[in-house]
Amino acid sequence: MSTLAQPDLSQWSCPLPLRDYPTIVMGHGGGGQLTSELIEHIFVPAFRNPTLEGMADSCVLPPPTGRLAFSTDSYVVQPLFFPGGSIGDLAVHGTVNDLAMSGATPLYLSAGFILEEGFPIAHLAAIVDRMGAAARAAGVQIVTGDTKVVEKGHGDGCYINTAGIGVIANHIHIAPTLARPGDVIIVSGTIGDHGMAIMSVRQGLDFETIIRSDTAALNTMVATLFPFAPHLHVLRDPTRGGLASSLNEIAAQSGVGILIEERAVPVLPDVQSACDLLGMDPIYVPNEGKLVAVVAPQVADAVLARIREHEHGRDAAIIGRVTSQHPGLLAAKTAVGGTRIIPLQIGEQIPRIC
Amino acid sequence: MSTLAQPDLSQWSCPLPLRDYPTIVMGHGGGGQLTSELIEHIFVPAFRNPTLEGMADSCVLPPPTGRLAFSTDSYVVQPLFFPGGSIGDLAVHGTVNDLAMSGATPLYLSAGFILEEGFPIAHLAAIVDRMGAAARAAGVQIVTGDTKVVEKGHGDGCYINTAGIGVIANHIHIAPTLARPGDVIIVSGTIGDHGMAIMSVRQGLDFETIIRSDTAALNTMVATLFPFAPHLHVLRDPTRGGLASSLNEIAAQSGVGILIEERAVPVLPDVQSACDLLGMDPIYVPNEGKLVAVVAPQVADAVLARIREHEHGRDAAIIGRVTSQHPGLLAAKTAVGGTRIIPLQIGEQIPRIC
Repeated sequence: MSTLAQPDLSQWSCPLPLRDYPTIVMGHGGGGQLTSELIEHIFVPAFRNPTLEGMADSCVLPPPTGRLAFSTDSYVVQPLFFPGGSIGDLAVHGTVNDLAMSGATPLYLSAGFILEEGFPIAHLAAIVDRMGAAARAAGVQIVTGDTKVVEKGHGDGCYINTAGIGVIANHIHIAPTLARPGDVIIVSGTIGDHGMAIMSVRQGLDFETIIRSDTAALNTMVATLFPFAPHLHVLRDPTRGGLASSLNEIAAQSGVGILIEERAVPVLPDVQSACDLLGMDPIYVPNEGKLVAVVAPQVADAVLARIREHEHGRDAAIIGRVTSQHPGLLAAKTAVGGTRIIPLQIGEQIPRIC
Repeated sequence: MSTLAQPDLSQWSCPLPLRDYPTIVMGHGGGGQLTSELIEHIFVPAFRNPTLEGMADSCVLPPPTGRLAFSTDSYVVQPLFFPGGSIGDLAVHGTVNDLAMSGATPLYLSAGFILEEGFPIAHLAAIVDRMGAAARAAGVQIVTGDTKVVEKGHGDGCYINTAGIGVIANHIHIAPTLARPGDVIIVSGTIGDHGMAIMSVRQGLDFETIIRSDTAALNTMVATLFPFAPHLHVLRDPTRGGLASSLNEIAAQSGVGILIEERAVPVLPDVQSACDLLGMDPIYVPNEGKLVAVVAPQVADAVLARIREHEHGRDAAIIGRVTSQHPGLLAAKTAVGGTRIIPLQIGEQIPRIC
């Protein structure tokens, strides 16, 4: 627990007194009274919605209209609380964003917790509170869940899995296979903020300002782009592996080349400094509140303007183009006028970033 | 890894050679080439279906007809392989069953893996193979997934989360709130098999026959009961906390009493012996392939006969009735003619059973 930054517990109050357990015990995962109390006193108040209060092992949802999007991610980030967010925010935003990137309107989330024996209940409550707030802000409901407890030494405080369901309107067709030569690449803001926020805490880096994670739900931004629908080809949130991985995957899956201008990619000065110190390239550093849009050239300026109107899109920029040359490869024009290939990384530059 | 029973690796062959990593390394969770190889060489061949091969961060599914059921569970069972199954089977069966108990036809699963650095790839492949086989047998598709890796000492080999989506036909209304006085309680077979299979391995208990987990998907059994729909009130799979917890929850949520005949509850002799040795009551011991049905009295015999026709229902039995007396409580007539209250347990009798 030594890596826990200070959660702000002053803003959390227990709605009902729990039994005399300040920390998680094995019985909280047993499906008995202790599990029920955890659900009743911690989860339901934070996630409050009529579906969850049914408290069955699965939940029943009204018939959706349209194709479904379905996504899942597990979250193992360390530390659990970091500047700008927590594992709780991340677990909501990440899955909401995965759904939004397929053109879906996210509606429902599940939440599965794997807790380590001895984990402070107050930390769990703070995490769950942030999940609830993040879900409300994104307009999604956490409708079903599960809690397991593992013995001390067999976990790392708190792991969270979220799965999500969204609906896709009939006229929306967005997929990583749909990039076409001539398309314009837009990024919705500065890159590398999340990765460097985490690394700064882990490495004890000290800058003039604290680097904050960009963790945010992007579904409301994506919704403003739906009017451009037939010209909106690919959306992607550059999380693990950063912008480089997302663009490489789009190039591979669409069978096109991508050429970006290195100088056009927005990077905060402190993030660049942190990357320089740690020998990292921001293009490989994870983001949790940014998207890449690949759009037809005739709507590029209008899409850019629309993204910039959103609170999380003020630093959006056009960074490159799709080309029929070097299919499957991502290349960058460097500041000194050369061109370099930016490969998919093999392993992981920053472990446990989300 | 010392608690791993021997997985049968002789039946598994690697469809494509992996890089020279016999065990999980941190990079397998990095979202880069190593992650892609794991997906391509391990997951896709085992789960093969057209949706999964899209390999996007979320998947797109055709518009469903009817209300949706949505459920999630994380699986942390130890050992990972046990007589009758593995964490892989369990992760499919558990979520399929949770969906089926709401009257849904399960359709799609997600799979999220949290792997510990150093976990043998061959064990992962064996687990994933069993998940694929279990999904095919249950008629569901694993359509999206995620892999995270944590450092050695921060996990326990392999944790799995599955979330599932099913559809509920308009005429089906099954819920834990719908038990009514006079209803008949049916259990689909012997209880305690899963819990005692796990405990026998952990404790090194030796019986004449090996106690096997009952892990199985029950959706096909449930489907045969749909013709009884208006008279089918509650379905529940008695997993954590066993039959006692399921019946207590039904009593509480429906505001009714439940009275069972202790002698009518089927228990295998070896399971009873193991329980006696360990000082446990089979009614609290988890099952992973059994259901409890609460049905109107006029269809009880017909439902029982239908369940007994199913391969996993041969030992089904009527075990009790719903009553308007002692609402919220589960009582049992004992073998010697008395009556005892069977409370919801507080914590966990058997940790990490699923």
